[in-house]
Amino acid sequence: MKTMKIVGLLSLIAISGNAENLRDMALKAGLKPIPSDEATLSKIIDNPKNKITPQKVELGKKLYFDARLSKSGLISCNTCHNLATGGVDGVGPATGHMWRHNPHHLNSPTVYNAVFASKQFWDGRSPDLEDQAQGPMQAPPEMAATKEHVEKVVNSMPEYVEEFKKAYNNETMKPTFKDVADVIGDFERTLVTSSRFDKFLEGDDKALTKDEKEGLKTFINMGCASCHNGIALGGTMQPFPVTGKYKYANIGDFKGDKNGMVKVPTLRNILETRPYFHNGAVWDIKEAVKIMGETQLGKKINDEDANKIVTFFKALEGKKPNITYPVLPASNINTPKPNLN
Amino acid sequence: MKTMKIVGLLSLIAISGNAENLRDMALKAGLKPIPSDEATLSKIIDNPKNKITPQKVELGKKLYFDARLSKSGLISCNTCHNLATGGVDGVGPATGHMWRHNPHHLNSPTVYNAVFASKQFWDGRSPDLEDQAQGPMQAPPEMAATKEHVEKVVNSMPEYVEEFKKAYNNETMKPTFKDVADVIGDFERTLVTSSRFDKFLEGDDKALTKDEKEGLKTFINMGCASCHNGIALGGTMQPFPVTGKYKYANIGDFKGDKNGMVKVPTLRNILETRPYFHNGAVWDIKEAVKIMGETQLGKKINDEDANKIVTFFKALEGKKPNITYPVLPASNINTPKPNLN
Repeated sequence: MKTMKIVGLLSLIAISGNAENLRDMALKAGLKPIPSDEATLSKIIDNPKNKITPQKVELGKKLYFDARLSKSGLISCNTCHNLATGGVDGVGPATGHMWRHNPHHLNSPTVYNAVFASKQFWDGRSPDLEDQAQGPMQAPPEMAATKEHVEKVVNSMPEYVEEFKKAYNNETMKPTFKDVADVIGDFERTLVTSSRFDKFLEGDDKALTKDEKEGLKTFINMGCASCHNGIALGGTMQPFPVTGKYKYANIGDFKGDKNGMVKVPTLRNILETRPYFHNGAVWDIKEAVKIMGETQLGKKINDEDANKIVTFFKALEGKKPNITYPVLPASNINTPKPNLN
Repeated sequence: MKTMKIVGLLSLIAISGNAENLRDMALKAGLKPIPSDEATLSKIIDNPKNKITPQKVELGKKLYFDARLSKSGLISCNTCHNLATGGVDGVGPATGHMWRHNPHHLNSPTVYNAVFASKQFWDGRSPDLEDQAQGPMQAPPEMAATKEHVEKVVNSMPEYVEEFKKAYNNETMKPTFKDVADVIGDFERTLVTSSRFDKFLEGDDKALTKDEKEGLKTFINMGCASCHNGIALGGTMQPFPVTGKYKYANIGDFKGDKNGMVKVPTLRNILETRPYFHNGAVWDIKEAVKIMGETQLGKKINDEDANKIVTFFKALEGKKPNITYPVLPASNINTPKPNLN
């Protein structure tokens, strides 16, 4: 018994020592936790231009789920960024009004943890979630609405107007398109999903399994964290072969931003957000890892290492916020009728 | 002061007396409350063939919201029967896979309180919610899936299989298409919305405003309750002019059941379920009331009476069940890929 205890103790020290080294490696590689301290997290996710409050978030949640903002009345933010399925729609190209597909075959990125990205949209053309939210509402193959439609819909329902007045403490408020996008953005800022990986980075050695630690080490040693870093494990603009070089380049005609840069997708909840890449071309996460090794790192990642890295991804599955499905204000005779065409 | 008290007391008696008379009138007209007594309600909503349990209901909720059951991966039960907006989609014809419309221009009926209907579908071809749920999953202009697709999707995710095993206490269960439809039906059975009208019918004189009582009286006197009766204020098969007679008959080619009968829609939450009638042709509830008077009762309902009846409808707005938006099992390499075509 004594021997067993001593051996147990030694191996515990060894593991703990390894974990500390690994944590150091991870932090040095630029990986950062979602802070467990609420005040610290609040500062990171808050909107400097429009302080988020519980009222704005609740109102934004309603509008996020309100399909009546779309031209057809059938498509909401949640249609493509579905909170039930990792914050995505799970199809190749985003598909919206009249079943039109994204003209560049772009895949809907997850809304979970999008607040940690430095830019929004695959080409990074949007600085924040409030600005981003204006895009899909108006895009013809997405919600296909006009600003005027959105404003008419929201202002037709007294309950919405009242909620805006309260949220902004402004008795004469007539919510504008921008106000609608702003509160939707505010809601999206709260969609963060802490994971066991965060606990590990914050000092809990036991938060990851042995295999997950091994996977994390492989992930760092391969150089994956050179792009997939920060709190988002992604979210910055990086070069990516959208044409020519890689096997699935020919799906869609997306060219990245003006410098050919593409936003790095977050790896948080990555096992829930198939298909992968900006064009949703790859359905198997292991294949995605290998393609990344080849095209981005110039390395052939073998099966064993790819498996290890995928095992690490399990630790990135985050706890989703508890969302009560909203009961929306009833539309009425003043609410614009949906237009299916 | 004394006089005022006496007058007050007398008028209270008068109101109370009127309320009792009105309640009697309502009950005699066949209107019935959603029972506030949970045990009584449970008996009414339960599935005699497949006793509902919290496990089945929770599992059914997940599947109700799971768009991956559809061919495209984009359409769930909730797409057309949206719990955020009165249990309907708010568009004219139901619109599904590849943006196809219901071929008969049929409008999606509300799922709230559907359990109280004697039959399901506008032509009453389905005896219960479990049977009904099999239809839209397979209909080409709705979810467009095959039974095999649904079974493959559900069985590809171990979490779903585990939940079925637990819900049915069957360790070797491999959920079938029918099992999926059954638990969806079980969930739908719980979607009942008690209203102030129910409180009134159960004896609370103050549950309705004076104007709502006046509206209820008009509703009964006009004969509306001859079809809109029972707990559902509807839900039975009745003659309805789908061709010829009425102004909007030409929208779609629906002919009712083999006897030309059409299911009477519930009036519960009717102010939230625009547009109206089987073909979703009418957007204004007042207009709908007048058309009903003319075509069904042979009466010209004037503006004043139509307004009174619509005022009564406010009392039919029910409290919606609190629904936590589900976090669904992640799909994986074994899950069939969605097909957008």
